[in-house]
Amino acid sequence: MEQSFSNSKTDIKIAVIGGGTGSFTLLTSLKEHTSDIAALVNMADDGSSTGVLRDELGVLPPGDIRQCLVALSREPRIRDLFSYRFDEGSLKGHAFGNLFLAALEKMTGDFAKGVELASDILNIVGSVEPITLTNVHLAMEGSNGEVIKGEFAITDTDFKNKRPKMWLEPAAEANPKAIAAIHQADMVIIAPGNLYGSIAPALIVPGVGEALRSTNAFCVYVSNLVTKPGQTDEYAVSDFVDEIERFAGGQFIDGVLFNTEQPSDDLLHRYAKEGELRVKYDSEMLNNTTYIAAGADLIASEPWKNIKKTDPIGTHRTLIRHDSDATAKALIELYESHGSNR
Amino acid sequence: MEQSFSNSKTDIKIAVIGGGTGSFTLLTSLKEHTSDIAALVNMADDGSSTGVLRDELGVLPPGDIRQCLVALSREPRIRDLFSYRFDEGSLKGHAFGNLFLAALEKMTGDFAKGVELASDILNIVGSVEPITLTNVHLAMEGSNGEVIKGEFAITDTDFKNKRPKMWLEPAAEANPKAIAAIHQADMVIIAPGNLYGSIAPALIVPGVGEALRSTNAFCVYVSNLVTKPGQTDEYAVSDFVDEIERFAGGQFIDGVLFNTEQPSDDLLHRYAKEGELRVKYDSEMLNNTTYIAAGADLIASEPWKNIKKTDPIGTHRTLIRHDSDATAKALIELYESHGSNR
Repeated sequence: MEQSFSNSKTDIKIAVIGGGTGSFTLLTSLKEHTSDIAALVNMADDGSSTGVLRDELGVLPPGDIRQCLVALSREPRIRDLFSYRFDEGSLKGHAFGNLFLAALEKMTGDFAKGVELASDILNIVGSVEPITLTNVHLAMEGSNGEVIKGEFAITDTDFKNKRPKMWLEPAAEANPKAIAAIHQADMVIIAPGNLYGSIAPALIVPGVGEALRSTNAFCVYVSNLVTKPGQTDEYAVSDFVDEIERFAGGQFIDGVLFNTEQPSDDLLHRYAKEGELRVKYDSEMLNNTTYIAAGADLIASEPWKNIKKTDPIGTHRTLIRHDSDATAKALIELYESHGSNR
Repeated sequence: MEQSFSNSKTDIKIAVIGGGTGSFTLLTSLKEHTSDIAALVNMADDGSSTGVLRDELGVLPPGDIRQCLVALSREPRIRDLFSYRFDEGSLKGHAFGNLFLAALEKMTGDFAKGVELASDILNIVGSVEPITLTNVHLAMEGSNGEVIKGEFAITDTDFKNKRPKMWLEPAAEANPKAIAAIHQADMVIIAPGNLYGSIAPALIVPGVGEALRSTNAFCVYVSNLVTKPGQTDEYAVSDFVDEIERFAGGQFIDGVLFNTEQPSDDLLHRYAKEGELRVKYDSEMLNNTTYIAAGADLIASEPWKNIKKTDPIGTHRTLIRHDSDATAKALIELYESHGSNR
């Protein structure tokens, strides 16, 4: 067992909506602030090890679920095992935790039961809930009106400055436990991450937007740090919020947490070469919104050091990323100053 | 958690030496009689899922270890998961528990640590110890003097009535914990199983025979039920004992438990078609041995019913097999009547 942090826990009920890496970063530190936390997970992932397992075994996508389970686990040894990725032979590329969830689903015929058992074994804080248990794929209308299918394919698509229409196939049914978690939460957090590939497919599950608009929870978006070329170029913080609310079918964001810290020139240069630029924030615009906007220094320092083979985020996305502790702390502060007495 | 059996547990310290299926059957019920039980496992397996993992990842053989862990587990859900075998895609044929042990070994570089963590997760009674941690393969001299390598190849070899010379490559070192378990036991049991493919490779690990000959434990062999064509044709119970003592480098068997129950004609006929015949016992011969020989009705009735996809024994070996409860009970009785007051 790990030592728990010494900072005293609050009794805030938190629900985090997102995909893999962004949720992972938030959950890792949020679990030190509250023991009542639900990770609500996008289920449209179809790339990498997850994609192979979906194709070959017909299972629901385990990858993002695995990352959330690992983030909330109190057992370091099993956590490392879950994140372990085979790097040779016919198992190459598979994260062990994905195989674990796939085996359980095949064995029991019930993905949710598999997640429950994994939650027990990993001794997690709170719970991890698939946002839907329908076996869905993401689809969108491309810039020429053509239909593009699959999250993996969509992630590589250039939107040509259009804000795309997106839907799930077949029609998804929301997981009632995910909807309940949104209603019961004191704070709902939309995690940073791939806006169109990870966040949108969670928000467009029928019933999720309605729950977000009607919950009494303080709803916060943690803004991305950099833009994605071909998809969110030139987006300011407020553009991300606009898109999130569009996918949810209306306004529901009460607060936004954005980064004010300047990465080093060297890092910015490396990112710019890939077409990724800092997400802008326009203080004046953010003063005239329906939501509170709070800036803080949120960038992790040198996160690419100490990367282990079992790091669930991996090395491909390690340069400019959220500092887990700082972001969690800022979120709790934002809630305490603006969310708790509404 | 499972309910434990109502029969009161003894405090007998038991060590079981063997491979997969035979050990599995004994351990499953022996764990209801004592909580001090060590499964000492043959590490020369190189077939099936285990063989692929050894070849592709260079890991130690997980298959037999997995079966023993499952047999000793108190957690039915995780036990079923460990035994689950993927049946499609690139994972086809792999038992999940094998992938678990392989991932842990790759991650930690330490097979024994992996077995320990698996033991924790499966909440096992007692312990499971590889008989050696050397990455060994079985080798033998064939009937024409040629060398045959690998347990899988040897299992299919016709010995042409010769009792073969066998050795391990490279030279194995015994696991000190396995040697200690033999010395500390009140009863050491040689499990039934493939004599030359599973039992011999455990006994020929240097140091194991010496420990068996010098321990104060009551050493019992549970005789096989049927012969293996090309290898143990015509063997009587006493022939199995002779071979076991040959591999261990001298006499050490104090007791033998053999089956007296007559399988149905139908079953015998099915087995005879495969060249497998009942192991004979010659009462007169068994009266003149250095060991106690006890007969009992040990055959499982209709074991092929209720076979699940997660059955670690599987359907290929289900017709004539030991009844787990009856065999464990007979072993405890044999120990209590002959082994405990020596």
